[in-house]
Amino acid sequence: MDTTSNDIAAEWAATYRRGCPSRTVIEVLANKWALYVLGALRRYDRPMRFNELKRLLDGITQKMLTQTLRALERDGLVSRTVYPTVPPRVEYGLTALGIEAGRLTNAIGDWSVQHAQEILAARRGFDERATVEPAPVR
Amino acid sequence: MDTTSNDIAAEWAATYRRGCPSRTVIEVLANKWALYVLGALRRYDRPMRFNELKRLLDGITQKMLTQTLRALERDGLVSRTVYPTVPPRVEYGLTALGIEAGRLTNAIGDWSVQHAQEILAARRGFDERATVEPAPVR
Repeated sequence: MDTTSNDIAAEWAATYRRGCPSRTVIEVLANKWALYVLGALRRYDRPMRFNELKRLLDGITQKMLTQTLRALERDGLVSRTVYPTVPPRVEYGLTALGIEAGRLTNAIGDWSVQHAQEILAARRGFDERATVEPAPVR
Repeated sequence: MDTTSNDIAAEWAATYRRGCPSRTVIEVLANKWALYVLGALRRYDRPMRFNELKRLLDGITQKMLTQTLRALERDGLVSRTVYPTVPPRVEYGLTALGIEAGRLTNAIGDWSVQHAQEILAARRGFDERATVEPAPVR
């Protein structure tokens, strides 16, 4: 490894140190529900209401969707607009920053779909080997 | 929204349905420790031993690193090589598929570092507003 690679690696290690602000940012995105919410808002390309998102994100609980939207709003990735109707209508959309983040999280989603069969085959092979081989040495 | 956007959205919704195989793949990557392990192996660009990864990934427990490496190996993203020394030396490296996945997860890491200040400022603003405004209507 040359000096440049060493520098890159050292910078990487510092970034991922516990307590480093960028790590708290990464951890908002490295979360399946954040990834799904950003992904849905970006793929549908329009603001959505809470119940529409909830229907779309199969398996999310009301509590988890509330927490996820709040975390994304807090980080400036999702905007929350209240319309003064009776009852008030609330819509969630992506900010400019959220559009960028959604592009990255959807790249992970697209890649996963593209390679799902390959990965599931690896998984089956691993599970078959695990049943015939002794426990591995770490 | 035109027909094409509707189609894209419908495809997106099907992909993210609970029980869809691609969702189980996404969820391996949408995990901070998987993101950090893939990121480290890709950034350092060489195989690593368990203890070296553990030192590098500040805050990870032995159990969590073991589980994460096993999940990534099971999915064919990480290779585990045992050298017949005494005691055996075990190294973890990226497979071709893992190199691709690491590129995507590092894109999220790089973006988070690049926008950390902006996101932290949004976070401070949100917390300040939260202390003066009444609880929001959902």
